[in-house]
Amino acid sequence: MSQTFLDRTLDNLRSAWRELRDSTVARGLGFDENENRKERWRNQIEACLARRGGAVSARARAATLGHDFLRLDEAGKKEFLHLLIAEFDVDRDRVSDVVADWTAADDVAERALLEAELRTALVPPFRSLLKEFNSLPQGVKFLVDLRADLLRWRREAPGLGILERDLKTLLAGWFDIGFLELSRITWNSPAALLEKLIAYEAVHAIKSWDDLKGRLEPDRRCFAFFHPGMPDEPLIFVEVALVNGIAGSVDDLINRDEDAVDPGHADTAIFYSISNAQAGLAGISFGDFLIKRVVAELQRDLPNLKQFSTLSPIPGFRSWMQKQVDARNRGEVTGLPAIAGASATVRANRGLPVHIEAAITDCEDLFEPQPSAERPEQVSPETREALEQLCCWYLLNARRPDSGTAFDPVAHFHLTNGARVERLNWLGNGNEAGWQQSFGMMVNYLYDLADIEKNHESYVGQGRIAASGAVKRLAR
Amino acid sequence: MSQTFLDRTLDNLRSAWRELRDSTVARGLGFDENENRKERWRNQIEACLARRGGAVSARARAATLGHDFLRLDEAGKKEFLHLLIAEFDVDRDRVSDVVADWTAADDVAERALLEAELRTALVPPFRSLLKEFNSLPQGVKFLVDLRADLLRWRREAPGLGILERDLKTLLAGWFDIGFLELSRITWNSPAALLEKLIAYEAVHAIKSWDDLKGRLEPDRRCFAFFHPGMPDEPLIFVEVALVNGIAGSVDDLINRDEDAVDPGHADTAIFYSISNAQAGLAGISFGDFLIKRVVAELQRDLPNLKQFSTLSPIPGFRSWMQKQVDARNRGEVTGLPAIAGASATVRANRGLPVHIEAAITDCEDLFEPQPSAERPEQVSPETREALEQLCCWYLLNARRPDSGTAFDPVAHFHLTNGARVERLNWLGNGNEAGWQQSFGMMVNYLYDLADIEKNHESYVGQGRIAASGAVKRLAR
Amino acid sequence: MSQTFLDRTLDNLRSAWRELRDSTVARGLGFDENENRKERWRNQIEACLARRGGAVSARARAATLGHDFLRLDEAGKKEFLHLLIAEFDVDRDRVSDVVADWTAADDVAERALLEAELRTALVPPFRSLLKEFNSLPQGVKFLVDLRADLLRWRREAPGLGILERDLKTLLAGWFDIGFLELSRITWNSPAALLEKLIAYEAVHAIKSWDDLKGRLEPDRRCFAFFHPGMPDEPLIFVEVALVNGIAGSVDDLINRDEDAVDPGHADTAIFYSISNAQAGLAGISFGDFLIKRVVAELQRDLPNLKQFSTLSPIPGFRSWMQKQVDARNRGEVTGLPAIAGASATVRANRGLPVHIEAAITDCEDLFEPQPSAERPEQVSPETREALEQLCCWYLLNARRPDSGTAFDPVAHFHLTNGARVERLNWLGNGNEAGWQQSFGMMVNYLYDLADIEKNHESYVGQGRIAASGAVKRLAR
Amino acid sequence: MSQTFLDRTLDNLRSAWRELRDSTVARGLGFDENENRKERWRNQIEACLARRGGAVSARARAATLGHDFLRLDEAGKKEFLHLLIAEFDVDRDRVSDVVADWTAADDVAERALLEAELRTALVPPFRSLLKEFNSLPQGVKFLVDLRADLLRWRREAPGLGILERDLKTLLAGWFDIGFLELSRITWNSPAALLEKLIAYEAVHAIKSWDDLKGRLEPDRRCFAFFHPGMPDEPLIFVEVALVNGIAGSVDDLINRDEDAVDPGHADTAIFYSISNAQAGLAGISFGDFLIKRVVAELQRDLPNLKQFSTLSPIPGFRSWMQKQVDARNRGEVTGLPAIAGASATVRANRGLPVHIEAAITDCEDLFEPQPSAERPEQVSPETREALEQLCCWYLLNARRPDSGTAFDPVAHFHLTNGARVERLNWLGNGNEAGWQQSFGMMVNYLYDLADIEKNHESYVGQGRIAASGAVKRLAR
Repeated sequence: MSQTFLDRTLDNLRSAWRELRDSTVARGLGFDENENRKERWRNQIEACLARRGGAVSARARAATLGHDFLRLDEAGKKEFLHLLIAEFDVDRDRVSDVVADWTAADDVAERALLEAELRTALVPPFRSLLKEFNSLPQGVKFLVDLRADLLRWRREAPGLGILERDLKTLLAGWFDIGFLELSRITWNSPAALLEKLIAYEAVHAIKSWDDLKGRLEPDRRCFAFFHPGMPDEPLIFVEVALVNGIAGSVDDLINRDEDAVDPGHADTAIFYSISNAQAGLAGISFGDFLIKRVVAELQRDLPNLKQFSTLSPIPGFRSWMQKQVDARNRGEVTGLPAIAGASATVRANRGLPVHIEAAITDCEDLFEPQPSAERPEQVSPETREALEQLCCWYLLNARRPDSGTAFDPVAHFHLTNGARVERLNWLGNGNEAGWQQSFGMMVNYLYDLADIEKNHESYVGQGRIAASGAVKRLAR
Repeated sequence: MSQTFLDRTLDNLRSAWRELRDSTVARGLGFDENENRKERWRNQIEACLARRGGAVSARARAATLGHDFLRLDEAGKKEFLHLLIAEFDVDRDRVSDVVADWTAADDVAERALLEAELRTALVPPFRSLLKEFNSLPQGVKFLVDLRADLLRWRREAPGLGILERDLKTLLAGWFDIGFLELSRITWNSPAALLEKLIAYEAVHAIKSWDDLKGRLEPDRRCFAFFHPGMPDEPLIFVEVALVNGIAGSVDDLINRDEDAVDPGHADTAIFYSISNAQAGLAGISFGDFLIKRVVAELQRDLPNLKQFSTLSPIPGFRSWMQKQVDARNRGEVTGLPAIAGASATVRANRGLPVHIEAAITDCEDLFEPQPSAERPEQVSPETREALEQLCCWYLLNARRPDSGTAFDPVAHFHLTNGARVERLNWLGNGNEAGWQQSFGMMVNYLYDLADIEKNHESYVGQGRIAASGAVKRLAR
Repeated sequence: MSQTFLDRTLDNLRSAWRELRDSTVARGLGFDENENRKERWRNQIEACLARRGGAVSARARAATLGHDFLRLDEAGKKEFLHLLIAEFDVDRDRVSDVVADWTAADDVAERALLEAELRTALVPPFRSLLKEFNSLPQGVKFLVDLRADLLRWRREAPGLGILERDLKTLLAGWFDIGFLELSRITWNSPAALLEKLIAYEAVHAIKSWDDLKGRLEPDRRCFAFFHPGMPDEPLIFVEVALVNGIAGSVDDLINRDEDAVDPGHADTAIFYSISNAQAGLAGISFGDFLIKRVVAELQRDLPNLKQFSTLSPIPGFRSWMQKQVDARNRGEVTGLPAIAGASATVRANRGLPVHIEAAITDCEDLFEPQPSAERPEQVSPETREALEQLCCWYLLNARRPDSGTAFDPVAHFHLTNGARVERLNWLGNGNEAGWQQSFGMMVNYLYDLADIEKNHESYVGQGRIAASGAVKRLAR
Repeated sequence: MSQTFLDRTLDNLRSAWRELRDSTVARGLGFDENENRKERWRNQIEACLARRGGAVSARARAATLGHDFLRLDEAGKKEFLHLLIAEFDVDRDRVSDVVADWTAADDVAERALLEAELRTALVPPFRSLLKEFNSLPQGVKFLVDLRADLLRWRREAPGLGILERDLKTLLAGWFDIGFLELSRITWNSPAALLEKLIAYEAVHAIKSWDDLKGRLEPDRRCFAFFHPGMPDEPLIFVEVALVNGIAGSVDDLINRDEDAVDPGHADTAIFYSISNAQAGLAGISFGDFLIKRVVAELQRDLPNLKQFSTLSPIPGFRSWMQKQVDARNRGEVTGLPAIAGASATVRANRGLPVHIEAAITDCEDLFEPQPSAERPEQVSPETREALEQLCCWYLLNARRPDSGTAFDPVAHFHLTNGARVERLNWLGNGNEAGWQQSFGMMVNYLYDLADIEKNHESYVGQGRIAASGAVKRLAR
């Protein structure tokens, strides 16, 4: 809807509302806006769903409701949402009727018709309303942010969870990968957009505009997916360094001491940061597509590139190890159930392999109280060796008890995409966060295009994790 | 998906295919591409739906299928679609199970969960596949055109009708009005776009590039809705003339004999042509939004405009009148059932009012054989008067027997939008088509913004048709 | 200048003018607009040059004058221009003074200062005024068109010639090649631009929008230079066909019977039409730059291209031959002076070589009265052979008596650019124009990048014309 | 020129150069790059000016020279420029000849022709070369920066001054106001552009990206002029605050404590900062056009605006006052010659008016040693009153001895543009720079569109300075 038209309608509705309120007050009837707002919302929602005044007016009315919603405080918003779920949920009597007809039908064509009817009956009226909010000037973003709110609130009441899941379905349809546009982001991009990268970067915080500018130099690349319904908002973005040979230290990439490489001569692209930018799109996955689209773009523009690799954190390693140490301190058998892996060896032993147990012993004094080292540089060569063995073992064997997938979430993401574990990097991330996650170690996942499908199938089908010889040897 | 990536995958799949075929032939086994293609499609669809090789590969595989589909002839396409509906329809056993659980559940939260499951179970796998086709370079347009095909074929087999309706649901979600962009089209627009206007114009054919240029002069406006998924394709467009006073003759507007009006000084905008451009979006309505968005745009840019009116054909009038004449010739009571209207008077009489009967008598000799006139200019003053009365009566009283809505489809469209019947124009369209539709008469529907909601509600709620005093008088 | 601001100022000036006129009339003084307009122009020009009211007002006043000028008829325009040259020419007394000082000065630094002063003194005030016209909304185009007018009028009065040459200097500075932008024109370009191609095409007339569309198919290219000061106007454009092997027939290229070539696989780019679009830029040359920029663009985008060649008309051949025939008929020695070439042989003989004389004899009956053939198809094999020999000889040897450069203007253009005469094509252009120019023959000029500089130097320095062996053989 | 083409030519030339060098070294001849470079430049310049290899090659050769020049250090650049002026200056013998012919000619038409020839003869060859540098990728910017260098170096050798002035003429032609584009700059502009605002802001330094963002909020405007030849570089920009009533404190505007105003309701636009961005365009004036274009834009977009005013520094006040105090301390008559104004009264008195002398006495203890106050807040009410009187007197009466124009440069700029001195603001700029310039006072210049032309004429013609009654009273 045009802003003009919406604004005018909005103004009309507001005037009408003020007149009503004033006349009420004038008649000495008192007037409590809050008390009555629920009634007001109900009326407006009903008018909107009944398409009173025609489709265009209904759309404008929905926009008005959206505007009002945006001005509510958190309590008000929840009240509104509760109203939605309480009074504009699926009509279960109607569902019952259609279900009965469907069960009775024996002809496929008739069933097909009734299925269409059932689908319609199963769309809750509140979804029709939510959908109309996309006519608000920033309507799509409004719904994405509403889902972000609902994700935080969903445990407070079952209704909010229902709404959240329904909204997810709506958004998943709209944000189909086919509608997204891949754009390169450069230092020539709008400042208003770059500011959002600073805000949304989730892996290696961007500390200043200078830091950001360094990440957009000619030997760097940044790509993001955008949706035409919210063109100013990146959905997900990736930062890439063009270098020679696989990079092992993120500090070197970000602090840019080394000389820049001529992009046309670089042989390796390092994906060193991938950030989801929209909390409200959680569970709607773009990362796999982003990486592969960017690989295709880079191949086309820079034919010299031979390797595509990540430089990734290992967020679960230290906490996993802490659990092993704690278990051992409690006299329990380590390894299971906490790390119940899919590997038969592990299952048979119902515990960690002996050499891994030994490695844990070697590293035990890194934990509180009185850790033997507080920075990777202080770690003794022996401990370092043990840590590297342990971490490789962790990456290849530690699994989620329920699904059998890799325990480490970042590993799981790249393995699902078909990458392989390529190289462990001691001192890959020297800062405090790196120490807390993985004693400063980072790992490269290599995207070898020839093997991506095979690796994916092996991992998803049989739980096998692809790795380089070097990593496998360390894990043994 | 990037073209590059798709193309490469496509090439891989084609190579594999050729190898298979060649080796088959080499082994002396014979090879009939057509015979085996069904099997091949089945395998590819299954691989695609199982996300074999990962989501990106599945998407690429879907694109490959889409490419293949596009190269099929009509019979091949239908064969493919039959395969889809026959083997990738809803899993009815699963639906049965969920329905059983839902019926057994008594808790609302549990039911809500099961409803989500039921919604998922009701999505036929073929829809998942169709959805993935939007990653084709022109994927959205591909699906829109597929639906256009299905609309033509749907009576041939029930399955095609099911597909068509399902595709409509998918497209209706994507083409939500909130995602459309209104753009003005001018003589500075790309020729490739303007060429489509010439092709799609459905009301007053554009005869040449000169004719088109005339419709884009400074005192004309043309607006269209576009969808970001098919940015080169107008969805619907409207042609507007800026004039002084309500225009009554479309020939004057198109042939441009008169001097151009300074747009800033015009007081009236005449919407003289609205064309839907995509057969595959039939039943997904944009016209109401288009008109009102354009009115808002015009108001903002040209504050001098005071009136917004159409100059519209009356496509149903002559055929309706022919029916009356035929009925009378057969000795039947005219008026009903053919024109069963909502008006109480008409219903009570179970026939046309006496003066309308008389008017029909006056005009009877316009029909074959040996019509008394073959062009509006030849009509006698008395007959003209009778025709004008009849036509006004027709616009205000002739109704669809089932719905009670206006018999004339164009009238129904504008009345639903909240317009009123403003003025009948003798000689409004002097060409053959105009004569065939309505003896050359045209009508103005006036969009008076202050009355739009009221008119809509009256028409939709009570079937009352708003009209100017002049039209009402003529109809009486 | 913003339109708004200009318009306002314009309105003010017009009101003032009307007031003046009305009061004059009111006082019974009579008022002849035409009689007084010279006085009015003089006052406005003086105010403008004196920067009365400040620089912005002066610029607005110049714009007003420009607007008035545009509304004048041809006589009025000439009157205005005569006023300019008569009263706002160089101040020759001032020039005399500076010249005297310069002559007296013996120090280089002092001379340099006086030269700067002399340059300023030599700028006629009318040029300052003309320069300010570029603030008109279409100011640069205005000046370009003004020069086109002056080119037509310059023989009428010496002052107009002075103005024309001065304007050329001004435009040459503005249209420096460094400011031009090369743009590809496609079927997606604005119709308003494509319409200009149709109007400006000077070599092979574009007969319709369909014809134009054919020239913009995927295996065709069209490029134009644009200037940022008149972004809607092409300055010069070239049409290119992507084919395999050098093309010899323009009909085949334009009528498109053959199958399209995949542009990525074509090995040859044929430049078959180059048109200057702005008469007012005559003598300011862009063609050489255009061809070489386009070659560079094509090489980058289509690495498969191996050859770059024109397919060109031979506009001077038939008229040159007519002269030879006429001379012979008058019993004169042919060859000189009409075709006084640079070649020593020709000069020594003071006539055409014997075999060329013989060839002319063979072709003589192609001329009126009673030509033996009226279309290339009717020419006998013997005559054809003689014509081909003659034409090759003409291309390589016929020269302008004054400059010794190639007699054929198209040949001169491409030879100056460093191309070589590659191949003569019988039936290259089968239409009437082709017959009138060169009995339907066309010629390819080949741009071999390795030889361009050498060819240019040979031609410009020693008058040597580069040609393929085949052409040389035919000419011998 | 396309980068590609240039690069290739460049590479060719470099290869040739390396070959030459290598072969020289191989022949044991020794090779000093620096020793020979002058010879090399000379050859290249000659080749370029002789258009050797054709116009396109000459242009490429010039570009190569430009590339080489850019890599030189300051000494190398000067050496190159000295070569240019020493060997490629005007051909004075040719000028002499043409001057002699011109003097001898008595016919106007002949003189006009000779003047054209004289103009050509007066163009030094080095200018032809410089002009060709605009084909470098950033060629226009290259020349602008070259002039900035020359402005710094021009006193070192007369030749550099000649070059500088000649380059100014060239640039003045190219940067004609008619070619400039006004663009609004917002927070959505490219970061690479915004970064330049931070660097170029010359009045109130932009301290950070946050500070910059504050200046681009919805109730602020920023506009700049751009030239199509260097589209990434602002030429001049202005910052505007939309407020209610004339603002007196720049701190309030920049530090944004107050609430933002709805731009549509603001009645006043305050121009609080105007910065020239290109040192190399010094003396080519855009400020007057910028202000008036921005006024026109603002009027169109925000019809509520009633007043357009600056909030300006008074950079010359304190130094002027220091001179008065010093003169008095030396026992001289104050006022003249330092402030020789155009006003008859002042001239007659050959000194400052008595009350102004008294005001200076009242303020004398603000100067070193031991100033009585170091910040505007510490100034006593009496001294403040005296300072305000003095400052108003200064603005209206202090003049340049040579030109009689306003002594204060900012005043002179706005008065020339037709503004009037509107209001003096105590504490207008509370920071150290404000104290050093004008004891923290600032002044508003009001642009009253109705009076601009009149004010300009009065100031430029009679030296009369327009001022508000309040300012005049204070100055009295």
